[in-house]
Amino acid sequence: MTYTAPVNTMHYLLRHAVDIDSVLATPAHSDTGHELISDILNGAADFAQDVLAPLNWSGDQNGATLKDGDVTAAPGFKEAYKSYVESGWQGIAAPTDIGGMGLPQAVACATNEMFYAANMAFGLCPMLTASATKALHAHASPDLQALYMDKMVTGEWSGAMDLTEPQSGSDLGTLRTKAVPNGDGSYAITGQKIYITWGDHECADNIIHLVLARLPDAPAGSKGISLFLAPKYFVNEDGSLGGRNAFHPIGLEHKLGVHASPTCTMEFDSATAWLIGEPNRGLACMFTMMNEARLFVGVQGVAIGDRGYHAALAYARDRVQGRTAMEQNTIIGHPDVRRMLMDMKAKLMGARAICMATAVAGDLALYSEDEETRKAAHAREALLTPLAKAYGSDMGMDATSTGVQVHGGMGFVEETGAAQHYRDSRITAIYEGTNGIQAIDLVGRKLRRDGGAAMRAQIEDLKIIHAMIAETEAKTGARLGGSEKALREGIETITAATELMLAAEETDALAGATGYLRLCSDIIAGALLIKASCNGLLAGDTGAKNMQKLTWFHTLNIMPQSKSYLDALERGAQPLQDFPESALADL
Amino acid sequence: MTYTAPVNTMHYLLRHAVDIDSVLATPAHSDTGHELISDILNGAADFAQDVLAPLNWSGDQNGATLKDGDVTAAPGFKEAYKSYVESGWQGIAAPTDIGGMGLPQAVACATNEMFYAANMAFGLCPMLTASATKALHAHASPDLQALYMDKMVTGEWSGAMDLTEPQSGSDLGTLRTKAVPNGDGSYAITGQKIYITWGDHECADNIIHLVLARLPDAPAGSKGISLFLAPKYFVNEDGSLGGRNAFHPIGLEHKLGVHASPTCTMEFDSATAWLIGEPNRGLACMFTMMNEARLFVGVQGVAIGDRGYHAALAYARDRVQGRTAMEQNTIIGHPDVRRMLMDMKAKLMGARAICMATAVAGDLALYSEDEETRKAAHAREALLTPLAKAYGSDMGMDATSTGVQVHGGMGFVEETGAAQHYRDSRITAIYEGTNGIQAIDLVGRKLRRDGGAAMRAQIEDLKIIHAMIAETEAKTGARLGGSEKALREGIETITAATELMLAAEETDALAGATGYLRLCSDIIAGALLIKASCNGLLAGDTGAKNMQKLTWFHTLNIMPQSKSYLDALERGAQPLQDFPESALADL
Repeated sequence: MTYTAPVNTMHYLLRHAVDIDSVLATPAHSDTGHELISDILNGAADFAQDVLAPLNWSGDQNGATLKDGDVTAAPGFKEAYKSYVESGWQGIAAPTDIGGMGLPQAVACATNEMFYAANMAFGLCPMLTASATKALHAHASPDLQALYMDKMVTGEWSGAMDLTEPQSGSDLGTLRTKAVPNGDGSYAITGQKIYITWGDHECADNIIHLVLARLPDAPAGSKGISLFLAPKYFVNEDGSLGGRNAFHPIGLEHKLGVHASPTCTMEFDSATAWLIGEPNRGLACMFTMMNEARLFVGVQGVAIGDRGYHAALAYARDRVQGRTAMEQNTIIGHPDVRRMLMDMKAKLMGARAICMATAVAGDLALYSEDEETRKAAHAREALLTPLAKAYGSDMGMDATSTGVQVHGGMGFVEETGAAQHYRDSRITAIYEGTNGIQAIDLVGRKLRRDGGAAMRAQIEDLKIIHAMIAETEAKTGARLGGSEKALREGIETITAATELMLAAEETDALAGATGYLRLCSDIIAGALLIKASCNGLLAGDTGAKNMQKLTWFHTLNIMPQSKSYLDALERGAQPLQDFPESALADL
Repeated sequence: MTYTAPVNTMHYLLRHAVDIDSVLATPAHSDTGHELISDILNGAADFAQDVLAPLNWSGDQNGATLKDGDVTAAPGFKEAYKSYVESGWQGIAAPTDIGGMGLPQAVACATNEMFYAANMAFGLCPMLTASATKALHAHASPDLQALYMDKMVTGEWSGAMDLTEPQSGSDLGTLRTKAVPNGDGSYAITGQKIYITWGDHECADNIIHLVLARLPDAPAGSKGISLFLAPKYFVNEDGSLGGRNAFHPIGLEHKLGVHASPTCTMEFDSATAWLIGEPNRGLACMFTMMNEARLFVGVQGVAIGDRGYHAALAYARDRVQGRTAMEQNTIIGHPDVRRMLMDMKAKLMGARAICMATAVAGDLALYSEDEETRKAAHAREALLTPLAKAYGSDMGMDATSTGVQVHGGMGFVEETGAAQHYRDSRITAIYEGTNGIQAIDLVGRKLRRDGGAAMRAQIEDLKIIHAMIAETEAKTGARLGGSEKALREGIETITAATELMLAAEETDALAGATGYLRLCSDIIAGALLIKASCNGLLAGDTGAKNMQKLTWFHTLNIMPQSKSYLDALERGAQPLQDFPESALADL
């Protein structure tokens, strides 16, 4: 159950698929070069492999425990967390002005993928801390920032997001937790929150909860929600810790996977909290943390899928069974086993490229000196975020399932470890907004609200990649006919689908949202791999030939699937509405 | 966590999708009419719902246990098994001459689906008993049959299949368990077998193991394997039980799912056994039981998928969240939730139809009076069996995953039950021959060995269904343009793919096998639903309109996917071989 991070692959993609150099060219990153990136990636790989991976299986088997109102993390996690903080991994992408290293988010995409792959349950804690830090930085008052942010950037204090309530999941407008002013600038929070990831634990010295709640005079629905900061331990003005706040974990969920990530039910009983941002504007603040978390859940999907992939690869190289057709005596010589491995690798590579492209867009939106570039990058980041989240998690689940399959009967036996990846990955399609919510976000907020401008810009990007193919063939002699055909058809498909979705009635657009998201993702993923092949070949990168071969597999097996969604998109919701709900159980 | 069996749907499919009447027209079934079938289906539904379903979750949580060399089934299972035997369910499809009810296998397809859906872990035991009985009936000497078969037909004694060894899974040719003649007509079996489903338990009075082993002078490889019968308790000539045989369970696997199905490691220490069939011809005998088991694993896949579907449907009707677009205030009014439910229902319906078509082919191969019909039916059964197994299990896994998704965060919490179905279903793609093995079986033994004759006959069947569309439109006024287009394109696709696979080099055929199996399955499944729509409309069946609407969804969403496999089939193994194995871990 070892893990070996694909460091070269990640660096290759950053360089050739998603233009990390455009981020490095901004003044904020004048000190960041590829040597530093390489050092960071290798350091993260060592940490992931040596510190986090060995705790993954034991964490699954032992899990976190709740006793007397306190959660204790799985054995070894506290020590690993301390080491994570001391090694400085928490703040590598946080801005330098708040004590971070200020590296591009795209680099954190790679390092976090390694941490999640090594130990997804562990990685959830830093992920939430980073998202909470980002929300504080964007919306909290200078006083709150001064008191809390430094130690969240280092990870000494962790963050938690308290959104969901039993009656209020995807629709946060129905939440009931109350916040009453105490008269001293603070508020008293009362209510119950569920599914609070790492809501309590002893790994960090303090836990900073960002809690959605309603003020007494708040309007109904999602426009009456405010965001509050509630620390587990109060913080004195000198930064030292005071007494414990009036909220506690009262239950831990018994989950399918990520057993070492404590999923808490939190009871707030007049807990003291401070408002973040404007009253009743909590949802906007929440989206600051949610958007970053969505990207990183996509990365998680890729990560756990890749962990499953490497486990399957190791098994396929070791297991002897039958006469093979491809000149190995282990099962990796069976064409169908090789096909499964290539299928996992190609799908994960495409999803990884989308995640990294999302992160680069976020970096440019933040750091570019040119306002137009920042604006366009922001729109691209917004457009790609639901793809990164949903496609990353879908491909990850797909890969962990195939990983079990490569193991045969051994895959169904828990001790092998493949089953844990399968179980762990299943949550990624659900939390931080289900993949259905992502699809609605794509079609509603990201596509139709701006009349298709951001998606049309994305399609223009695809055309630029298509033009690169002929250039690469001319300059390098490479033969890329498969890529040309797949991308040309892909551009036709995504254009047709986009026009359909823009012209559709709302219910029809909602009915087609998931198909549209998948169609766009398959095509954009393939296009990014084609770009990675072309750029690599043009640059004479040693990895380029293999990327070209992997891309060929993608253009034959993954990209062609996109066309199969068009028939259904054209018909909208009618096939769903025609079938009587009463007959869903039986004819 | 209740279960409601879709009895009307099953009966509708038997009647309109798979021509059960052709089986009922044989003399062996002259007493079987639709009223009897309806009674049987409703009786099975009651048993599944009332006796088996309530034990499903507790069985998962408690599991079977091994202590002092004996396995104890999960609480309640012994009583349920006794009730199952007393109710006469075990023998409903066994021939009347050995004490069965002699009903068509296609009817057992439906009843077993209900039992598996209600409690898959329980259902595995009767499944193996039925398969073992079939092998005994086909290959064992009259003396062995006389001594053992009666009580296996009733289920008083259960059966187990002992094939796999640690080094010998998909490739049985490498197995090492030895059988040495005792000189009295019996043999002494020594060796270790793993993954023995219900290998030990106290539910049945005796357990009849069919064991693959090598005789002392056996040739190497798969041509040196013989099949033996080893009872847990010896049977005296009067049928009473004697002492315990020299084999024991020495371990239980800790599995991802089906926890209430004891998966045993069995140690044979000079256990006494009797030869079944000819020496060194064990693999042929084994395939008799394996083929039936493969069909029923496909049925299991559909079953557990359908259980997940009904759980998701119930949740979607109950859960309030957000403003819905389809005039319900529960989440079933959200188009994307309705889409998920329709997706599950359509995929499962198609896979169910394939399983039933396989069973009907088996019934005709056995019972038709016409030799040509028997021969053609046998070829069709052989062709469809790998599709039933692989597609049934793949669609089932797909559905249980979507079922988790419909539940949102609740789906990841074990107590909801959706996660159990997801875990349980995962084994169906693995045991009784992995789905990769099924694909190789389809392409090698079933397609290429007879030069494509059986598949071309299947394509002719598809053309007959295509012709039914115009006839149905003319006679009923129904508009079936979507079906016409989807099936016309489907016939083109399956024809092109079949010719490609017939002309391919062996390695290329093996590389394309899984894609080919999926392509054929999507098309044949859709065609059977189109047939079910047409026949139902022509007969004026009240369920026909809904079947037509479900079929429309299938032709828009599922059948079009088949085309996307052609690009890869054309390229064969080259894309797999080109990518260097050494670069699979990292670029």
